[in-house]
Amino acid sequence: MNTVAIAGVGLIGGSFALAIQKAGFRGRILGVSSPSTIDAALNAGVIHAGVTLEEACAEADLFYLAQPILAIMRTIDAIAGLVRPDCLVTDAGSTKGDIVTFATQRLTRCQFLGGHPMAGKTSRGVAVADADLFQGRPYVLTPTDKMHLETPAALHLVSWLEKIGAVPIVLAPEEHDRTVALTSHLPQLASSALAATLAAMLDTGNQLRVSGPGLSDTTRLAQSSFEIWEDILATNPVAIGQALDAYIDKLHFFRQNLTNPRLREEFAVAAELARKCRR
Amino acid sequence: MNTVAIAGVGLIGGSFALAIQKAGFRGRILGVSSPSTIDAALNAGVIHAGVTLEEACAEADLFYLAQPILAIMRTIDAIAGLVRPDCLVTDAGSTKGDIVTFATQRLTRCQFLGGHPMAGKTSRGVAVADADLFQGRPYVLTPTDKMHLETPAALHLVSWLEKIGAVPIVLAPEEHDRTVALTSHLPQLASSALAATLAAMLDTGNQLRVSGPGLSDTTRLAQSSFEIWEDILATNPVAIGQALDAYIDKLHFFRQNLTNPRLREEFAVAAELARKCRR
Repeated sequence: MNTVAIAGVGLIGGSFALAIQKAGFRGRILGVSSPSTIDAALNAGVIHAGVTLEEACAEADLFYLAQPILAIMRTIDAIAGLVRPDCLVTDAGSTKGDIVTFATQRLTRCQFLGGHPMAGKTSRGVAVADADLFQGRPYVLTPTDKMHLETPAALHLVSWLEKIGAVPIVLAPEEHDRTVALTSHLPQLASSALAATLAAMLDTGNQLRVSGPGLSDTTRLAQSSFEIWEDILATNPVAIGQALDAYIDKLHFFRQNLTNPRLREEFAVAAELARKCRR
Repeated sequence: MNTVAIAGVGLIGGSFALAIQKAGFRGRILGVSSPSTIDAALNAGVIHAGVTLEEACAEADLFYLAQPILAIMRTIDAIAGLVRPDCLVTDAGSTKGDIVTFATQRLTRCQFLGGHPMAGKTSRGVAVADADLFQGRPYVLTPTDKMHLETPAALHLVSWLEKIGAVPIVLAPEEHDRTVALTSHLPQLASSALAATLAAMLDTGNQLRVSGPGLSDTTRLAQSSFEIWEDILATNPVAIGQALDAYIDKLHFFRQNLTNPRLREEFAVAAELARKCRR
């Protein structure tokens, strides 16, 4: 792997570039992004050059797509006829079903391997890119056939993921999407809906002072940008809908049993799950 | 103020004892708690002596009730005929309506002033008591008449709250309860219900690995003990029910508009509220 191209040099793409450099990558890293992002990424030593998609395709052994989901699909479409046959295209999109289906149909010239690093920050952009972002974090890979993980290019990618401290997990695209609907998309919507409810119900900003640290925790995700979430909601609506239905049912149960000892059991089950999240 | 008695020497009661000592209190601090808690509190220098309620009443200038809500009411009942007339009784209960109503009726011998420090930790008990727990945190006082804040004993308490770094806020008991139903009780139930939903919907613990830091934030409160929440739910069910209804309505709206651009506005309102929580 001599040349890595990164489309979308933001938090994730920029962090991947910094992480592989820190882990010993000595090849070239090309960035495809807006002019202002390329300037910032060059100044911060995140990439070695800013190039066009066409130029990236001519050189890249690994093409890392770290854009929003619909932009990833547009990029796949744009590079499909241009990539080198021994290039591996991978992505960091937050849903996998639509991307993998589209890539399988469209990207016939070289291998595609879907990915999703379970890492992030509230802030976005190359300015907050971090060489240690993936350290100890799960990194889901979603081959449509597990044999696709055994190609030289895929083995190479996995070895780099391990070098940057990520923990590879293999899931089918649909299983990934059902899982993150619960572990990521539902928490986001629960937090956004909570903050939106408070905004509607609180008379004055002053009342917000009457709160403990728990309010900060539960509303942290509500700061997330809709630009990211719009594509996630559009590409995983069925699983997200099922997760929301189950959550609303559970809240109804809580509502109807506020002073019923049965709620003790719900709290116990919830506390056990919350502890598992922390192991 | 020569002698402070604390009923319930746990996280809050123990932290109050440590905080006033750190702020220069040189009088005696008496603890009323279980024998094991008294031992731990004596060993940690949190209190000077463990006493009975009767002994505490004979000496205390300030009686600080830091138990669960229903236990606070039982203590008020028990000390009503025993406290010194110039004692000030205050409490740290998480709901105020029922406690203040009960104390007003029952505690005729001395002044009562309801309180609620907006501070806490996930862990409980005197072992995690912390002299800086109240530093910079709001501390709600709920007099039924604002004149009650002007008595010498109340002025004295407020000056100690300020010395330990707390930020006093005055609210009517009902206004307090309506506010914390939204800023504290709803976030707790949203977190517990989220964790309970995940526990029911996830097939395997393994799936939990496929998550980002947002899941930890949104499920942190779900670790809370039901022992505390049982009393809160029992003494603020109307306001909590209204808060839950509003939250469920908002989630329904999200559910029905997952791929509708109207959700952008909800995310914007939510993000603004989340930022306000952090100011």
